[in-house]
Amino acid sequence: MSVVCPADVYRARQRIAARVRRTPLVESPSLSALAGTRVLLKLETVQPTGSFKVRGATHALAVLAEQGCTRVVTASTGNHGRAVAYAAQALGMQATVCMSSLVPANKVQAVRQLGAQVCITGTSQDDAQQEARRLAHEEGFVFVPPFDDPHVIAGQGTIGLEIVEDVPDVANIVVPLSGGGLFAGVALMAKAANPAIRMTGVTMAHGAAMHASLAAGQPVAVEEVESLADSLGGGIGLDNRYTFLLTREWIDEALLLDEASIARGIAHAYREERLVVEGAGAVGMAALLDGALDAAQLRRGPVVLVVGGSNIDMDLHRRVTAGCA
Amino acid sequence: MSVVCPADVYRARQRIAARVRRTPLVESPSLSALAGTRVLLKLETVQPTGSFKVRGATHALAVLAEQGCTRVVTASTGNHGRAVAYAAQALGMQATVCMSSLVPANKVQAVRQLGAQVCITGTSQDDAQQEARRLAHEEGFVFVPPFDDPHVIAGQGTIGLEIVEDVPDVANIVVPLSGGGLFAGVALMAKAANPAIRMTGVTMAHGAAMHASLAAGQPVAVEEVESLADSLGGGIGLDNRYTFLLTREWIDEALLLDEASIARGIAHAYREERLVVEGAGAVGMAALLDGALDAAQLRRGPVVLVVGGSNIDMDLHRRVTAGCA
Repeated sequence: MSVVCPADVYRARQRIAARVRRTPLVESPSLSALAGTRVLLKLETVQPTGSFKVRGATHALAVLAEQGCTRVVTASTGNHGRAVAYAAQALGMQATVCMSSLVPANKVQAVRQLGAQVCITGTSQDDAQQEARRLAHEEGFVFVPPFDDPHVIAGQGTIGLEIVEDVPDVANIVVPLSGGGLFAGVALMAKAANPAIRMTGVTMAHGAAMHASLAAGQPVAVEEVESLADSLGGGIGLDNRYTFLLTREWIDEALLLDEASIARGIAHAYREERLVVEGAGAVGMAALLDGALDAAQLRRGPVVLVVGGSNIDMDLHRRVTAGCA
Repeated sequence: MSVVCPADVYRARQRIAARVRRTPLVESPSLSALAGTRVLLKLETVQPTGSFKVRGATHALAVLAEQGCTRVVTASTGNHGRAVAYAAQALGMQATVCMSSLVPANKVQAVRQLGAQVCITGTSQDDAQQEARRLAHEEGFVFVPPFDDPHVIAGQGTIGLEIVEDVPDVANIVVPLSGGGLFAGVALMAKAANPAIRMTGVTMAHGAAMHASLAAGQPVAVEEVESLADSLGGGIGLDNRYTFLLTREWIDEALLLDEASIARGIAHAYREERLVVEGAGAVGMAALLDGALDAAQLRRGPVVLVVGGSNIDMDLHRRVTAGCA
């Protein structure tokens, strides 16, 4: 049996139900016409804190709270930090969030507004994680990993559960791929419901640590670079314990997108779907618009694109949707 | 007893459940801070067809289908027409939609794409309604009123039901006010749940037929003018049978907004809430930003703003959100 099983996801759903939203699955007429099959968008953009990360973070903190923990620390490209801050506030816990200096200002501010302490350190996600682990070690906070944790994975898995409940005939699920917590959680429930559901992970062409690790057969480090999909940046950890193996087990197709493609995804979301979506959340739409998804596979049945979040700097959003990013 | 009662709304929910979405209620941190109480947005923007209108239309058509009707006709400023087209396609019925020439092109196109026939006629909503009634009279279609119909009101009432279920302590509900179908439906369920819930209707300063009718004590005609909140335009019908009396009975506060205020609401939705919202859907946010809602009333408890739809011309949206509309 896997380190996370469907029963863990059912348990996660019970734990987080009061604080996390069951999100809508909205059909996209234009993408459905393009793909020749129903294309549905799983709108994690309407979660509290504006991204799916609130599921895993709330679940991890709820488990910690049950164990008597009151102080947590984490490292984050923004969305996870924000989610931990939200969950800590909701559960009456104290949170400290470490971030690299590459994280956009709007995301730093959002974490502070949720009552958490922010600690800016280094220039990479790995630096931030190191500082968070040091604080945990020296000051008695409990570290909440952004993805490589069974409780986080189980929390993200509630997305997969909602998808198979709402679209039982789903044939393809397309998920933004970064540390693998979202991918592993969704894939767990999808493959348990029907092993024939094809799982596609999409990420940006440069700085894609999980993609490079899958190719190398083991976790490897990659240079972190700026991207419209900044939420997908960061390493998977050379000491990765869970998400690398789970992602490798369940991924049917791994796609890389260049920045122009991600920009098209953001612009499509705005113009056609009337959604404000960050780059990391737009990669599924971008892949479909690029024709990067296997056409024969698409014909097998409904496609669900997980739209992970809305936390984009709005000046950047204006530039990208004007076509001049 | 009223012409529509809560049991009608429960029945409506059963009839439309498979085709219409239970929409998320999303808390707005910035508006909550401004109001000094929880402010939640009822996101009808994620409905199929992008507006709340799909509730009433789907319910009305489902009732007609049960009665053996196969061909319907309606008049619409866009969202209702689109909703009728969607519902007809979903239920295997044939729809014809009459619109005035003032209706934005994107809304006309959206109706055609849903398989309905479009009939452009006259320069006012009243002209379009007249033509629809003529077609109904002469060609055997059944007319589906955009708002002044018990089944439409019961369908929109499902929004009120979801609000009181999800926020039992809601103290204020703010609803875009046009023909009164949405207002009457939501107010019905709110007042039945708790007569102390304060119902506010918001509309644009010019061409507000229901507002003028309430002031006059009877349905009156007003000149239709262009507005950012074009979905709120149109008369309520001098022969209004239901929504005028129901709105008059339940409305606690009626507010008028100028165009600059509506533009601020649209821009706020985009910049702060990361939502693409049409003018008619942004009036609740605009009223709150304006300080137009009674401060003492706001302190009584949570506020729900019904965000009615997302169907704005995207070039207009770009101009408005750039502050140069």
